[in-house]
Amino acid sequence: MDVREYIAASATDFSRALREWLTIPSVSADPVRHGDVRGSAEWLAGYLRETGFPVVEIWETAGLPSVYAHWPAADAGAPSVLVYGHHDVQPAALDDGWDYEPFAPYEKDGKIFGRGASDDKGQVLFHALGVRASLAARDEDAPPVSVTMLIEGEEESGSPNFAALLRERKDQLRPDVIVISDTTMWAADTPSICTGMRGLVDAEITLTGPTRDLHSGSFGGGVPNPAHALATILAGLHDADGRVALPGFYDDVIPLTDEERALLGKLPFDEASWLADAGDSAATYGEAGYSTLERIWARPTAEINGLWGGHTGPGGKTIIPKAAHAKLSFRLVPDQEPAKIIESLKKYLQTIMPNGPVVTVTAGTGVRPCRSPIDAPAVAAARRAMGRAFGSEVLFTKEGGSGPEADLADILGAPLVFVAVGLDADRIHAPNEYVDLSRLLRGAESIAYLWEELASMSESQ
Amino acid sequence: MDVREYIAASATDFSRALREWLTIPSVSADPVRHGDVRGSAEWLAGYLRETGFPVVEIWETAGLPSVYAHWPAADAGAPSVLVYGHHDVQPAALDDGWDYEPFAPYEKDGKIFGRGASDDKGQVLFHALGVRASLAARDEDAPPVSVTMLIEGEEESGSPNFAALLRERKDQLRPDVIVISDTTMWAADTPSICTGMRGLVDAEITLTGPTRDLHSGSFGGGVPNPAHALATILAGLHDADGRVALPGFYDDVIPLTDEERALLGKLPFDEASWLADAGDSAATYGEAGYSTLERIWARPTAEINGLWGGHTGPGGKTIIPKAAHAKLSFRLVPDQEPAKIIESLKKYLQTIMPNGPVVTVTAGTGVRPCRSPIDAPAVAAARRAMGRAFGSEVLFTKEGGSGPEADLADILGAPLVFVAVGLDADRIHAPNEYVDLSRLLRGAESIAYLWEELASMSESQ
Repeated sequence: MDVREYIAASATDFSRALREWLTIPSVSADPVRHGDVRGSAEWLAGYLRETGFPVVEIWETAGLPSVYAHWPAADAGAPSVLVYGHHDVQPAALDDGWDYEPFAPYEKDGKIFGRGASDDKGQVLFHALGVRASLAARDEDAPPVSVTMLIEGEEESGSPNFAALLRERKDQLRPDVIVISDTTMWAADTPSICTGMRGLVDAEITLTGPTRDLHSGSFGGGVPNPAHALATILAGLHDADGRVALPGFYDDVIPLTDEERALLGKLPFDEASWLADAGDSAATYGEAGYSTLERIWARPTAEINGLWGGHTGPGGKTIIPKAAHAKLSFRLVPDQEPAKIIESLKKYLQTIMPNGPVVTVTAGTGVRPCRSPIDAPAVAAARRAMGRAFGSEVLFTKEGGSGPEADLADILGAPLVFVAVGLDADRIHAPNEYVDLSRLLRGAESIAYLWEELASMSESQ
Repeated sequence: MDVREYIAASATDFSRALREWLTIPSVSADPVRHGDVRGSAEWLAGYLRETGFPVVEIWETAGLPSVYAHWPAADAGAPSVLVYGHHDVQPAALDDGWDYEPFAPYEKDGKIFGRGASDDKGQVLFHALGVRASLAARDEDAPPVSVTMLIEGEEESGSPNFAALLRERKDQLRPDVIVISDTTMWAADTPSICTGMRGLVDAEITLTGPTRDLHSGSFGGGVPNPAHALATILAGLHDADGRVALPGFYDDVIPLTDEERALLGKLPFDEASWLADAGDSAATYGEAGYSTLERIWARPTAEINGLWGGHTGPGGKTIIPKAAHAKLSFRLVPDQEPAKIIESLKKYLQTIMPNGPVVTVTAGTGVRPCRSPIDAPAVAAARRAMGRAFGSEVLFTKEGGSGPEADLADILGAPLVFVAVGLDADRIHAPNEYVDLSRLLRGAESIAYLWEELASMSESQ
């Protein structure tokens, strides 16, 4: 039985297992769900034990737990591979606009629906299937490379404790290659490998004014309105050219080279269909002088993720609200540093704030941007493996998302290789997330081939 | 027993009755509470019957009901007075920051606490006590003027059906004087009479962008963000001088005369204590070239009452929100018209809107600004009556609040007289609303004297 046959025969069991895992609402951003994040880690640990990993452990952090699983190669000299993914998910609730309960997953017409189906539980789970397929095809009881899985529980909350965990376990991990399965590819029929990801840092701004909501008939027009001050701050985040207006925001940005811009320009980007995916009324918009792909992959941004203040219930209420709030996030590119960006935000607020309301900023630690070296042998091996699985040429892309990849590369000192089968159309971070089962199976197949490719590269050296 | 003795002897019963009425959550802005607004009307009708009004009726409208009560004077030639107030209240919930349940009123240290204590149930109820005191002092069974009370149920929702009710009942009402008890006075020891009120119109703005929340990693920086567009709209509502930037906003404003400005300038306005009442961090702020009193009483304004959109729960969520919303209200001065202001808002939105998000505006019908003529004999009578009740000089003020007073004056064709005992410190439209029982009793006393003053003016003509 070859890799593909084994995977096809296992598809039903694989789908059932994934849907079982998706019932656990492992939302790391919501303290009420932290027990579920732990339950998710325990489910995964149990599943990886059943898969055959000889060593499976729950690794505690100062926050929510990671899952560690290790399966040594038969040949002690074979390369060591670390697989990174995460088992926590984005917040989701039926009244956000879901057509079904986000944690009551189901399969229909070859698609699996549920929060985490694509980001990232489905992409974590295909590794378990891939390693079994590799064993079955070779009729062995150990993989051709040493496989370690390290599956985080706080990625959707900015991985605040993951770097510390990596430093603590550095000597135990020592990978030759780091495989990341938490991104997307170009299209369902066009596999691609990501060569860089933006970083991220978020901040919450709170403006407090009067000690209570004031009657606008008695005070309106005479004292500052925190909601008005917030609007002024948010409107000023960008200049007329769509550039982020924080002082020094672009100081550490490595400019795109002409070669990089040419490479991006060659991709068959269908802007109209990308826009259609974003929704009826969407239009392109962003930093002047850059293409849409450059804007979303290779340029830093500032986004308002949410805002609130004052009366938001039915009917009118003629008040000056006592406070107003906004949640912001900044996408970063090499070599921007999250902490410097927050300092820049604070400087901006000092400059723009009117007298009256008091501003406070709460910021996360953020994640740094990262790059995957196109010329690394492991990246070439991954390109061959995905090419075999998908039966077509594998392109190179960049990606707008963020994870702890920069920490993985820097702390563990190994090259990053992105092998992933998500799509922008999977509605990750949005209602009605789903994934094609067939894509997850291709992911499993790619991984089985990648272990072979990496092992044979090592032997031929 | 004179007026003051009668009122003092009735204080305990009066407080008990008011607290009973305050338990009814008659929030006209909340459809869930509409049954309570009706219950409030029925409670008041019952109380006015017990008070002795020979005619008491619930008057239906296309919305929520008003209460009508009529007590003819013994002398058919005596002046006819219409008292206006309202029995609906502002929204209130414990988690808005109240220190106690807003609809579980109590009395402590001479203060009555509860939503509606000052605005406006307390000020409606003192009229019942005032008319009884007038009868007791004169040992008569009819008041010296013909007293009609018309107590509305939708004032806090912008009185959408009150003008129609007035037109329908115009021939039955025919007052010589309209007494308004829904405002404030200068200070607890400084009675004053309001000579004008600002109008009001409110609007809700909704910006819709993509059909779902988008992952900011995949789309951020490439499509417009409705929250950002909303911030731009709200920040642009005022220019650098604090003037409202809607096109033509000031076209119909009657400029303040030098005499009016001088009159306002003479008031002993303690800006520091007014600011302290607004809360620790407040500072004065507003239209350049005008004093604080002019800004809040005599100049039009635009206020943001609330705003919301995107992720507002715990933790971060890296999305471009699909929509963003704001509630606005505009305070108007003579001769601004609510409908023209909404047209002006719509023109402004067409000018400022970026491509992408679609904007919709929902507006109320609004209330027009009004004036009370200082030289009217009835205003002089009210000034004498309050002077007798409070034992000090009665000053003239303007007020920033809004009610259907312009409709009352225009449709019924009679002068407005403002007799009210509220204070800005009563926290109306805010958590922890309260009123001093002693002020309500002085209000009752003022009204008993006003009926005498108006009757004797009529006799002496």
